[in-house]
Amino acid sequence: MNQPSDKLNLDRLAVVLVDTRNPLNLGAAARALSNFGFEHLRVVRPYEPSFREARSAVGASELLARAKEFASVPDAIADCTFVVGTTAAHNREMRQPLHGLDSAGQLIRSHLQKGRVAMLFGSEKRGLSNADLAHCHCLVRIPTRIEHGSMNVGQAVAVCLYELIREGGARPAQLEFGVSASQADVERLTSVWLDALRASGYVPSGGGGTTEEKVRRLVRRLNFQTADAEVLLGMLRQIVWKLHANEKTDAGH
Amino acid sequence: MNQPSDKLNLDRLAVVLVDTRNPLNLGAAARALSNFGFEHLRVVRPYEPSFREARSAVGASELLARAKEFASVPDAIADCTFVVGTTAAHNREMRQPLHGLDSAGQLIRSHLQKGRVAMLFGSEKRGLSNADLAHCHCLVRIPTRIEHGSMNVGQAVAVCLYELIREGGARPAQLEFGVSASQADVERLTSVWLDALRASGYVPSGGGGTTEEKVRRLVRRLNFQTADAEVLLGMLRQIVWKLHANEKTDAGH
Repeated sequence: MNQPSDKLNLDRLAVVLVDTRNPLNLGAAARALSNFGFEHLRVVRPYEPSFREARSAVGASELLARAKEFASVPDAIADCTFVVGTTAAHNREMRQPLHGLDSAGQLIRSHLQKGRVAMLFGSEKRGLSNADLAHCHCLVRIPTRIEHGSMNVGQAVAVCLYELIREGGARPAQLEFGVSASQADVERLTSVWLDALRASGYVPSGGGGTTEEKVRRLVRRLNFQTADAEVLLGMLRQIVWKLHANEKTDAGH
Repeated sequence: MNQPSDKLNLDRLAVVLVDTRNPLNLGAAARALSNFGFEHLRVVRPYEPSFREARSAVGASELLARAKEFASVPDAIADCTFVVGTTAAHNREMRQPLHGLDSAGQLIRSHLQKGRVAMLFGSEKRGLSNADLAHCHCLVRIPTRIEHGSMNVGQAVAVCLYELIREGGARPAQLEFGVSASQADVERLTSVWLDALRASGYVPSGGGGTTEEKVRRLVRRLNFQTADAEVLLGMLRQIVWKLHANEKTDAGH
């Protein structure tokens, strides 16, 4: 019989439901995690009455009771080293690598060997926003029809988790890796990077929302190791310091 | 992008829901069929009020409206040449071959080449009865945990149908990647990057051999796409320009 293997480190995967409104979908997602041997459900900005209702439903799982609530996507994924967004991906202008679920499964299994992985699912109506997607290292599309691409959240979670544990699932590729930078590191890097762009005039002061998303995506796409992230952070801090120091000297005259 | 392939003869598969009571599960199963490109939903002895409710629900699919109702399993599968039953299969005395979903998927796909195939899903509470199972050529078990084997019907249908079309997506995933940056691009990037580090004082002017190697290695390790390299080059050029402009203003006073 196929039993989810411990070797897959299933307890390192966090399923993150963003802006979920329907309590039945919260319950269904929790049930799929339990069916397939996963443990960590996180919810971002749930519709509060739904979240309460789902937790208190008859037969609500212990897993749902333990689900952690977060105010934002960055908070929910702060301890994760690899972040995957799910998308219907037909009309979006994609900036990140887009994988079929099959190949995303292999990637995720490899990353689970090394650290925490987050898998993001968007709201029933709109899916993940561009701002949420900007936090993802890659996107995954479940191979639904173009004419009817949008899945029910509970079903999408079940299908994705099945893909991760299915028998015959390709064994995790051995990636030659150091330690991937955590999302907190990556966010720090993004932030200092943006400071440098603002101080240099690349981003007009006050504006820059688009650039912010652009930088956030770029930093994630580059998939930094911890050591590299630290080096780059040091470089950028020096650049920001110098840009500001020059300004002050300038203003001082 | 993975599109369910016509070659799989998806229109030859009938999903048969037996004794389903919850209208939401009927709706969810219909949605999964539509998502993955299947057409034929059949229901055996549905709880009538639920079936009516599901069909008349807002947003109920055309597929659900077309679902055929049968009084018994033999009636529902009369035109099928291969019948597969889904089961949690822990305590039953099994009389038929039991497959993991993976290998059942292969079997079903090959039978779809030749004729109609029925896939049976039992009621929420009891699954398929032994009498129903007796009509099956083989049984399939979704690889859920022994401790929590029983899946929601809508989710079970979604997972099984995904497994059937997954192979149709066995074509290599379309990575929407651009082209890797050429070595000339990478060298240009390294050079401007170093200019920025020198202008900011990160590298002492005159020195910097070690840093130069460090940056060169870092840039290669990050494995830039051409488009990303261009964006970063633009950012760094602006930073360098600003650092020098500040210096000049400063010196001009």
